[in-house]
Amino acid sequence: MPELSGPILVVGTGLLGTSVGLAARRAGIEVYLSDVNREHIRTASGLGAGVEHHGEPVQLVVVAVPPDHLGEAIIEALRSTEGVVTDVGSIKSQPLGEVRAAAPELVSRYVGSHPMAGSERSGPLAASASLFEGRPWAVTARPDTSPEDRSLVMALVEMCGAVAIELGPEEHDEAVARTSHLPHLMASLVAGRLAGAPGDHLALSGQGVRDVTRIAAGDPALWQQIISANRAAVLSLLDEVAGRLSDLRGAVADPSRTALGELLAEGVAGTRAIPGKHGGPTRPTQSIFVAVPDHPGELARLFADAGEIGVNIEDVHIDHDPGRPVGQVELVVEQARAGHLADSLSDRDWAVRE
Amino acid sequence: MPELSGPILVVGTGLLGTSVGLAARRAGIEVYLSDVNREHIRTASGLGAGVEHHGEPVQLVVVAVPPDHLGEAIIEALRSTEGVVTDVGSIKSQPLGEVRAAAPELVSRYVGSHPMAGSERSGPLAASASLFEGRPWAVTARPDTSPEDRSLVMALVEMCGAVAIELGPEEHDEAVARTSHLPHLMASLVAGRLAGAPGDHLALSGQGVRDVTRIAAGDPALWQQIISANRAAVLSLLDEVAGRLSDLRGAVADPSRTALGELLAEGVAGTRAIPGKHGGPTRPTQSIFVAVPDHPGELARLFADAGEIGVNIEDVHIDHDPGRPVGQVELVVEQARAGHLADSLSDRDWAVRE
Repeated sequence: MPELSGPILVVGTGLLGTSVGLAARRAGIEVYLSDVNREHIRTASGLGAGVEHHGEPVQLVVVAVPPDHLGEAIIEALRSTEGVVTDVGSIKSQPLGEVRAAAPELVSRYVGSHPMAGSERSGPLAASASLFEGRPWAVTARPDTSPEDRSLVMALVEMCGAVAIELGPEEHDEAVARTSHLPHLMASLVAGRLAGAPGDHLALSGQGVRDVTRIAAGDPALWQQIISANRAAVLSLLDEVAGRLSDLRGAVADPSRTALGELLAEGVAGTRAIPGKHGGPTRPTQSIFVAVPDHPGELARLFADAGEIGVNIEDVHIDHDPGRPVGQVELVVEQARAGHLADSLSDRDWAVRE
Repeated sequence: MPELSGPILVVGTGLLGTSVGLAARRAGIEVYLSDVNREHIRTASGLGAGVEHHGEPVQLVVVAVPPDHLGEAIIEALRSTEGVVTDVGSIKSQPLGEVRAAAPELVSRYVGSHPMAGSERSGPLAASASLFEGRPWAVTARPDTSPEDRSLVMALVEMCGAVAIELGPEEHDEAVARTSHLPHLMASLVAGRLAGAPGDHLALSGQGVRDVTRIAAGDPALWQQIISANRAAVLSLLDEVAGRLSDLRGAVADPSRTALGELLAEGVAGTRAIPGKHGGPTRPTQSIFVAVPDHPGELARLFADAGEIGVNIEDVHIDHDPGRPVGQVELVVEQARAGHLADSLSDRDWAVRE
């Protein structure tokens, strides 16, 4: 297995590219940076992500440009360097197709990848060496990829602290259409029904609708590129959803309600299909609700108490409550530990309910 | 304004009814309980929510039974007592219609209401006097409701620590179709597309799809009742969504992408329409990301540090990360305070990025 010894060239010093540079520098690897925007190179360089590239030879190129420019940037990297070329783009088939068409003799040196990490902010200033810590990172090697080239990209994933998931390029695009692009579009459709609704109707909004619509706040210009670049897989899922929506309409209209119950049960099964934390099987969890005054230090006191009690908190939700200076904090913990946590917090005078 | 002096009769001692009983007892008000399930009465009574009802006269009846039985239970309460009758059901027009049809001479004593509170758990054991703290609580008085009867229900809302939102019954049903029932059904449709997907596809699931689908895990038997009882409003919204889905399909297929950008922008506008915490205008917030080792006490240490730094945390998300013992914790804070928090946490050796 070839060692990732560097140098690495990062093409595109936005959030993802700069974060890769920072992670590589943290690992002691030499990093060169390039970007159409010289200002971004200076910023990324100032943050310690590497130095400007002037044609030096490199072992690995990481292309981190927006979806619309992926194909051309990968081809340019294959032509101008002799290193293995990977990218961190959200879609994998379309850039591969472009490389195959424009530079079939170079395509074997290209191994696509896609870290499932991001931020509502963009640009090098939002970057961090720890952006990828613990995140899934798809690696889309192909039958014609050499074991050495594949291993080099796997080593990049490991260096960034991420978890490699190996999939074919088309398979990857189908997977993200289902787990990312469709959810984004449906969140957008639901959110779109809120724009323009009367304020006293929206006042009834609870945590549910906030959760369902949260990702719809993402940058339309970026998502427009991502979804267009994965058009075929997204359209096929939209057709599937349109069919189920029509079934759903019939089920809601049907006095018998059996079909509606089946559709709702399908949804329950779907939520259970999402893998649990740490990639393992989902551990049964339970929620504890605690009333917490909404001023600095109170959450700290709650978590300090939970920490002393020695129960690991799997997840936290804070309820957005209108008009009251008290928040409901939901602590999600392993089921077997929930009773102990609830009792112990009550003993410490927290208003708890399970 | 009439004082809520009690006694109160709670009909249906599940999660909501028992919680109302506990809140009333906390306020020193006498509470009677009734339920078709005697076991539930004993449990609720044992929790301190009141005592079993044996026909004693009451000032106010709170009907807290499942949607399918609301109408009949409200009619029975109007016939068997002389008090004002309210209910805590998820839909308001259908039970009102049943009361009007069966007991037109008694309908003026009925004032519907609907607290936006619940839990993934049900039954009296999940109840809490603080369940309604800070939650919106719709009160659906009508033109023929007397000011005294309306005030009594408003006093109940206040006693429970909730925030009254006054709407007409039909208006309420339209509002919850939009802010609750449609999001639930769409979450269910998205989740339904995950059931049966290959495991290595689902391994790419990030926080986005988890958020979008979370509420789809709710009890199908209950949601089937809720949605069926609000059939007209839900069907009208489903038709609206089907139309927009068809527009969306066209927009994704269209190489120009302008229409797709517009649909995504409509979603962004919708997320901004949801009122902020405390019912006021949305304050600008910003997220800080902190890498936190996944064992007891580390979150506590983070929150203790944030508390000492004196920045109020508006919301928290913990990233479910596969395969790694480190979590990314997202702290959402007021924008103006984000820089100070990030710098101060870094000074305390946390791996932070904004």
